[in-house]
Amino acid sequence: MIFLDNASTTKLHKKAVDNLILYSTKKFFNPSSLYLEGADIYNEIMCVKKIICDKLNVKFNNNIIFTGSATEASNLAISGSYKNSFKKMIVSKGEHPSVYNIALNLKSNRNTQVEFVDLQQNGEIDYNSFEKLLSEDVNFISVMHVSNETGAINDLNKICNLKKQYCPNAILHVDGVQAFGKFNIDLSDLNIDFYTISAHKIHGPKGLGVLYVKNPNKLQTQIWGGGQEYNIRSGTENTASIMAFKTVLENLADIEENCQKVLTLKQTFVKSLLNLIDNKINLKFIQNKNLSPYILSLCVLGLKGETLLHMCASRGLLFSIGSACSSKKGGNRILEAMGYSRKEIDGNIRVSFSNSTTLEEVKEGSKILADCINELYRRINK
Amino acid sequence: MIFLDNASTTKLHKKAVDNLILYSTKKFFNPSSLYLEGADIYNEIMCVKKIICDKLNVKFNNNIIFTGSATEASNLAISGSYKNSFKKMIVSKGEHPSVYNIALNLKSNRNTQVEFVDLQQNGEIDYNSFEKLLSEDVNFISVMHVSNETGAINDLNKICNLKKQYCPNAILHVDGVQAFGKFNIDLSDLNIDFYTISAHKIHGPKGLGVLYVKNPNKLQTQIWGGGQEYNIRSGTENTASIMAFKTVLENLADIEENCQKVLTLKQTFVKSLLNLIDNKINLKFIQNKNLSPYILSLCVLGLKGETLLHMCASRGLLFSIGSACSSKKGGNRILEAMGYSRKEIDGNIRVSFSNSTTLEEVKEGSKILADCINELYRRINK
Repeated sequence: MIFLDNASTTKLHKKAVDNLILYSTKKFFNPSSLYLEGADIYNEIMCVKKIICDKLNVKFNNNIIFTGSATEASNLAISGSYKNSFKKMIVSKGEHPSVYNIALNLKSNRNTQVEFVDLQQNGEIDYNSFEKLLSEDVNFISVMHVSNETGAINDLNKICNLKKQYCPNAILHVDGVQAFGKFNIDLSDLNIDFYTISAHKIHGPKGLGVLYVKNPNKLQTQIWGGGQEYNIRSGTENTASIMAFKTVLENLADIEENCQKVLTLKQTFVKSLLNLIDNKINLKFIQNKNLSPYILSLCVLGLKGETLLHMCASRGLLFSIGSACSSKKGGNRILEAMGYSRKEIDGNIRVSFSNSTTLEEVKEGSKILADCINELYRRINK
Repeated sequence: MIFLDNASTTKLHKKAVDNLILYSTKKFFNPSSLYLEGADIYNEIMCVKKIICDKLNVKFNNNIIFTGSATEASNLAISGSYKNSFKKMIVSKGEHPSVYNIALNLKSNRNTQVEFVDLQQNGEIDYNSFEKLLSEDVNFISVMHVSNETGAINDLNKICNLKKQYCPNAILHVDGVQAFGKFNIDLSDLNIDFYTISAHKIHGPKGLGVLYVKNPNKLQTQIWGGGQEYNIRSGTENTASIMAFKTVLENLADIEENCQKVLTLKQTFVKSLLNLIDNKINLKFIQNKNLSPYILSLCVLGLKGETLLHMCASRGLLFSIGSACSSKKGGNRILEAMGYSRKEIDGNIRVSFSNSTTLEEVKEGSKILADCINELYRRINK
């Protein structure tokens, strides 16, 4: 089985299994316990938070909140900042459902003025559209770092500068789920209030999200209880998963080197695919210099992505159409916002890599995909 | 090390480790994925929900929601039912902070009328106080099944009957964290709308709570995103933890038998303790026929529970003072509500058992506790 759906989820890192077991069966104490064994676990959790801050190049200052998922983390940033109302909220059309759907709800059911930033054809936000929506009234902005659908990388510097110019006090949330652990991130120079991280997208466990919070004091409690996570998100800490994630963080090799490695994998995949498919075949790749090497979005014109997905899966190659989260819904609002035609959207598939993907998998995977494409085209043209 | 703090958390069940690893490293697929490997995981999660329904003796009907903790589950029951306001909310004074603190917040910051039910000296709610608070205006009630502090068991039949008499349409939430897996629970005859379960209190993984929801359609979305958990609580499912919990559920031996076994452990502990401590020592046990065998709350009059905790911990015996969740706060609102004196509260400790606790641990544990009590009394009386 060749797993090229790493933007959807990833296999737990081999080395992380040890901590998962150790903190489930031996060091299983409640971090809120008064005895040393519990307090030690609490301190170990704080150390993991410090490591995350190091990776974001910010000082650790009670500014990392563990949640049950990245979805919860992004919801926390928004709901926790929302008091009686946002005067004006700006959200990109490319956002993951965890941001997009909560924004839709605020607009529909809470009388909040929400404006959606257009996307460019390459998947990045349209910075002109963004600039036009900015005004002193804006008090919350959410723009993702890297698109889970297309791999498009938004220019956070540009976004922060525009915000500074038009609405310096607006709160800025960045969904970094497809960026953290894959790109060097330096929040020290950026005026970002919230940054969302997912463990299971980079070989950590599922059920663990992280929210970086610049000013925890400004955040309202979302889950009441025993006071964990600075009284913002109570509940016994998911210690084993946090400690397994620690191993993942410690094993993040040189990020630039990984990026280069994965870029080679992606290029090999594309080259091999193009070599193997018949000339007449009509593919569309997203061409963009600011594109994540981890994600390859392509449209096989004239075919249905879903048919291709099932055919390839039956031959041992797994990938997605759109994001896994939204794939059961049909359609694709993000590709639509990028100006894709219905035909392009229908034929869209997402192939996504990991630094543990091998060259052999990429070669074999592109062969399976090419075979299926060729076969489906032949059936159509019969 | 003798761990008698099982009401705080428990060690993961030995047999559950296999599933935790299997679903982290091999069957790690996203349940929202369209290919068979993902859909299979989705179906496996549904099977676990069905098993939980069986344990509650209710029909499975999209009525089980997995959360990141029992605290989140109880918050979901309350916040998800709260639309613009509760006319009148009734909460017992014995509730866990996950219910008590959200009720306090609704009262203080949302102008909600919240009334608190008194407790009897034995830790159960005062049914007369409860009855007096009931009226047609009441539309939300939260009473726990078994107290995490004292082990007192509330009479759910009596509570449901009183509710039926005075406010049949009121929503009833029951925090079953210290009951599920330890007592036979039959919700089929009880008119209960929500029942909260925690995995890590019965040898499941931390980071996993469960909310039984009688009418999912009446519940408002708390976490927006990809639509998981019937669109009420989005976020990629914590598959490995859910499947580890499945093993725990499958290995719940005969509950009556376990209860009897643990009762014997508790009685042995008390008998051994009483045999070993000097005659002059002034203990107070909670005497109550409706008491969980899993929890032993006792007050060592004249000593500080915290001193005893640290002294025993240094000799390898771990237990709590009050619940782990609230133990860092000092004081104890629940024992206060039961009419305990300051002296009794200061000397209170909670010893809690599991069905995996051994007779040897209980004997050795009671010896360590008795030794520490005797030694501390001697120091005082010098």
